[in-house]
Amino acid sequence: MKVTLRNATEFYYEKYIFRRKMTSLNEKLLSTVVEPTSNGKNKVTVVGVGQVGMACAFSILTNNVSNDLVLVDVMADKLKGEMMDLQHGSARQREGESRLDLVQRNTDIFKGIIPQLVKYSPNTILLIVSNPVDILTYVAWKLSGLPQNRVIGSGTNLDSTRFRFLLSQKLNVAPTSCHAWVIGEHGDSSVPLWSSVNVAGVRFRDLKPDIGTSKDEEHWGELHKQVVESAYEVIKLKGYTSWAIGLNVSSLAATILRNTYQVHAVTVKLTGHHGITEDVFLSLPSILGENGVTSIVNQILTNEERELLQKSANTIHDIQKNLKL
Amino acid sequence: MKVTLRNATEFYYEKYIFRRKMTSLNEKLLSTVVEPTSNGKNKVTVVGVGQVGMACAFSILTNNVSNDLVLVDVMADKLKGEMMDLQHGSARQREGESRLDLVQRNTDIFKGIIPQLVKYSPNTILLIVSNPVDILTYVAWKLSGLPQNRVIGSGTNLDSTRFRFLLSQKLNVAPTSCHAWVIGEHGDSSVPLWSSVNVAGVRFRDLKPDIGTSKDEEHWGELHKQVVESAYEVIKLKGYTSWAIGLNVSSLAATILRNTYQVHAVTVKLTGHHGITEDVFLSLPSILGENGVTSIVNQILTNEERELLQKSANTIHDIQKNLKL
Amino acid sequence: MKVTLRNATEFYYEKYIFRRKMTSLNEKLLSTVVEPTSNGKNKVTVVGVGQVGMACAFSILTNNVSNDLVLVDVMADKLKGEMMDLQHGSARQREGESRLDLVQRNTDIFKGIIPQLVKYSPNTILLIVSNPVDILTYVAWKLSGLPQNRVIGSGTNLDSTRFRFLLSQKLNVAPTSCHAWVIGEHGDSSVPLWSSVNVAGVRFRDLKPDIGTSKDEEHWGELHKQVVESAYEVIKLKGYTSWAIGLNVSSLAATILRNTYQVHAVTVKLTGHHGITEDVFLSLPSILGENGVTSIVNQILTNEERELLQKSANTIHDIQKNLKL
Amino acid sequence: MKVTLRNATEFYYEKYIFRRKMTSLNEKLLSTVVEPTSNGKNKVTVVGVGQVGMACAFSILTNNVSNDLVLVDVMADKLKGEMMDLQHGSARQREGESRLDLVQRNTDIFKGIIPQLVKYSPNTILLIVSNPVDILTYVAWKLSGLPQNRVIGSGTNLDSTRFRFLLSQKLNVAPTSCHAWVIGEHGDSSVPLWSSVNVAGVRFRDLKPDIGTSKDEEHWGELHKQVVESAYEVIKLKGYTSWAIGLNVSSLAATILRNTYQVHAVTVKLTGHHGITEDVFLSLPSILGENGVTSIVNQILTNEERELLQKSANTIHDIQKNLKL
Repeated sequence: MKVTLRNATEFYYEKYIFRRKMTSLNEKLLSTVVEPTSNGKNKVTVVGVGQVGMACAFSILTNNVSNDLVLVDVMADKLKGEMMDLQHGSARQREGESRLDLVQRNTDIFKGIIPQLVKYSPNTILLIVSNPVDILTYVAWKLSGLPQNRVIGSGTNLDSTRFRFLLSQKLNVAPTSCHAWVIGEHGDSSVPLWSSVNVAGVRFRDLKPDIGTSKDEEHWGELHKQVVESAYEVIKLKGYTSWAIGLNVSSLAATILRNTYQVHAVTVKLTGHHGITEDVFLSLPSILGENGVTSIVNQILTNEERELLQKSANTIHDIQKNLKL
Repeated sequence: MKVTLRNATEFYYEKYIFRRKMTSLNEKLLSTVVEPTSNGKNKVTVVGVGQVGMACAFSILTNNVSNDLVLVDVMADKLKGEMMDLQHGSARQREGESRLDLVQRNTDIFKGIIPQLVKYSPNTILLIVSNPVDILTYVAWKLSGLPQNRVIGSGTNLDSTRFRFLLSQKLNVAPTSCHAWVIGEHGDSSVPLWSSVNVAGVRFRDLKPDIGTSKDEEHWGELHKQVVESAYEVIKLKGYTSWAIGLNVSSLAATILRNTYQVHAVTVKLTGHHGITEDVFLSLPSILGENGVTSIVNQILTNEERELLQKSANTIHDIQKNLKL
Repeated sequence: MKVTLRNATEFYYEKYIFRRKMTSLNEKLLSTVVEPTSNGKNKVTVVGVGQVGMACAFSILTNNVSNDLVLVDVMADKLKGEMMDLQHGSARQREGESRLDLVQRNTDIFKGIIPQLVKYSPNTILLIVSNPVDILTYVAWKLSGLPQNRVIGSGTNLDSTRFRFLLSQKLNVAPTSCHAWVIGEHGDSSVPLWSSVNVAGVRFRDLKPDIGTSKDEEHWGELHKQVVESAYEVIKLKGYTSWAIGLNVSSLAATILRNTYQVHAVTVKLTGHHGITEDVFLSLPSILGENGVTSIVNQILTNEERELLQKSANTIHDIQKNLKL
Repeated sequence: MKVTLRNATEFYYEKYIFRRKMTSLNEKLLSTVVEPTSNGKNKVTVVGVGQVGMACAFSILTNNVSNDLVLVDVMADKLKGEMMDLQHGSARQREGESRLDLVQRNTDIFKGIIPQLVKYSPNTILLIVSNPVDILTYVAWKLSGLPQNRVIGSGTNLDSTRFRFLLSQKLNVAPTSCHAWVIGEHGDSSVPLWSSVNVAGVRFRDLKPDIGTSKDEEHWGELHKQVVESAYEVIKLKGYTSWAIGLNVSSLAATILRNTYQVHAVTVKLTGHHGITEDVFLSLPSILGENGVTSIVNQILTNEERELLQKSANTIHDIQKNLKL
């Protein structure tokens, strides 16, 4: 099953899309000068048509990022249930299943998808959204054979957006004027960089040295806990999680397709950064363009921030080395 | 429970929104010149936080229609189940329930909501999205006591959008360049105005007189069937229906808040139009602005189109007169 | 002199653009993953940096149509004065100069530009804005050797926009809901298609048969006079004319680059349409996409409208046949 | 002469705008439900219809900031020439004229405008764009009697935008990801805050301590010179200066009308900030909303930055105290 959508207002399966055939009306209404074609220069393929995939597709269309969108749902029936897990972003361990089991299960699904994608689109940029996103970005890099700049994970881009939003609420300043980064592993172990949080260049740590630490009596550190928990708690607001992801993925796609060189916290190959020597993928602020990742920003971390990052890298590397690729 | 959202990137319940309090950091970071306030001039209140309500909220925020949004979920627990029916747009009869029973059930829910809304916002414009939308717009008009220009239903605005999209696919012309209207009752009995469908002012009926009729061997009439069915069939694409409604409601809100006088097919009081004498609400192309409906376009209908419209009006009036308001 | 702009906020000459060189700071701040490049898929080249050219560039940048823009001012000094005439849209005859002289003068300028452009960009789409736009579109087609779908003139796209705006003011309906076309020759001899002017499919001629004619006592025909005059009269509002052109050219570029198949009234090769047999270029509603003109809409004209179009075609053909290409 | 514009596509003088009168066509086409009105909640009045005023109007309309725009050109003929000076942003001293003479001349023009504006719109927010913008913002504050939060100057908002653009060119990073501020007096004496320039929270001074100083062998300080000079140099690109100002003013208007609390470097009352005790107006990063300035950010300046700011304050105060208000 394959769905091709070329318009922002509606979603229809193939059977509803009349391919342009020369009806008597078409011939009378229009004089053809040249047959319409598409060079595919702005094509976006969304793999997986669950809630998250559809939210990405919808955001990409309605924000005019691209109107050349292909939705692919390649799963045979027996894999379909597992694909659903990925799509729903749950990606949870089943009873009695280790974390490695879970990742191996998802890796096996990727084995059926990634090589096919790269075969038909050898110059593509892969943007991984499925969870656990950091390991699966590594898996996609290995399975695809693509250079590291063309394999990106959505990583802590959404965590950073949430962090800025919560800061903006506390300060009554627009989120776009609150500068703050969450890096590292997407999820519980993500690292909020309190040392560089600032508004108009004024670092909060210069005004309040204990901000974000356990000693802070105003408990600003709670904001990061809410960033982490939000995925679980606000899920009661229906559709919330997939919409927020859709919007974030759409903004990453816009930066790439329009070649704007904006900085996003996305999952990239970390080797050589912040003392990490293994081939692991975690989120760092990176400059994106039409070739994918053009540069990674060399942030200056505190010792604590650096250690948290390294700890995540080790945990992930331990899982990776037992994966069957 | 009340949720106030002031930002497009995130949805959080009240408990997550730190009201700005003068933490030591705020005081050091910012010199207050005047306390921030809101005059509410662009306020949009979404009643009901199910999938449709959230899709409307999300579209309104992400399309920059308004960033002053209030989500209200006012239901006591015992009404909650019924409210869910409304929100999911199902609004179907239960086993053994007549159509009147269904409408009466929904009307009873409105009795608990509409007077409260009007009490706190006497100058509001009500935009009804719940189904059956035409009768419930009438109900909202009666319950609210508002003048007819301030009570609008989403009506066939979405049906018209779908119709233009399907035409655009068949012709390979942008939907915005395909001019076509679906009027009357939202749903199965809606009336596609084949007599005025045109591209660049060229009416299709002048090129193909039987278009849209049962005699047409190219079966263009199928397009309208697909408009009607799409609500049921494409529901397999998760979230589709609510997203499409959200986008449409957001465009209606934009026309109203920005006072742009665009023409939309929306549910309005029909009395005196096309030979209808009773107080029924159905969709006709109408000009919207900051006062709601400023004008209704007097379309020239064929006899067949007029009869279909009158038939819907009669059916609806028969139900309305037995409603307990 | 060549200016390359990649950003919407500023315009700077080459000398101000530091090409990225590896300063010590760059090296410390950023780890390069891959050198940034551009595939030129959205490149727009604006030839001529007078007011009109700059307005086009500015609209294209600020409306996010493309951020890969090249400004070219190729004129040697002795041609510069003449180029200025083109740019200012004045394109007027000098004292004692015939209309043919004027066109020949502009044609000679095109001889120095068009072949160069096509040499370096053989797959380009030429969008001619210089006046007299219809003849110069023909000249560009001849000089370039490009197929007819890749040579387009801005034509009566702006006249149509103005016509809809004036109608919208008179009716208090949004311009986007007023459907009306001006076709033929850009300028004094343009043809307003009163026969198909409509709102929501209601043709004005069905309500008021003499609309747009000399018999109309409400003088709606004045609206077309104002469309024609506006270029001269409102020029007192500084910069007005170039801004309006910039906005229109930007919308044409958006339709082409985003491949949206919208219908615009643009200058296209007219041969075979409405009884015209010569190779002349005039405006008709046309469908645009990434290959340029994909189709021309076969409008149904009244005899009067058809005669006005043919008259323009004859006048233009008379001039063309004496041109030295 | 007064121009009212309610649409983004066209600019016309009053004589071209047919006020809606009940022509026979209007009556047949439309059934009026309620007379259209405007509550003025998004009204923007642009005083002065020179190039800068028109550029502001055009940007506000085309960026959908507001479609309720009033252009006012109130000057009697004898003042017209002087008004032109203001509009062209030249605001230069005439031969033999002192700087005080120039400011007094502009102040006298303001005396004829500001009280009239405040009389008819007592709750307005004044956004001053005329040069010298800092002193004239003070003058407008004095003449208007409005509280300080409702009188704002465009200040160094444009200088900051230019600074970020030039940094972005040198680094190949999007301007929106380059965080840098220019504060103080708009023009030659503006203060670039090199101490807080950063990308993703990485301060350039931490990587290169002499950046922006005279000791820097890579001459990054040149970027600020170019910010200052750009107003003069790039003026050869026609219309450039007014377009850039128009875009900046439009973004300020958007922040205010949409109440988004973004931080902009604008001219505000500086008393009590950075050791300044007199009533002078200069640019500091400020949070804007529907009440104008809600807060000023307390930046941490180096001694050198602070001294430059104080020097500007003293110069300006010396001129102000001799002004006849």
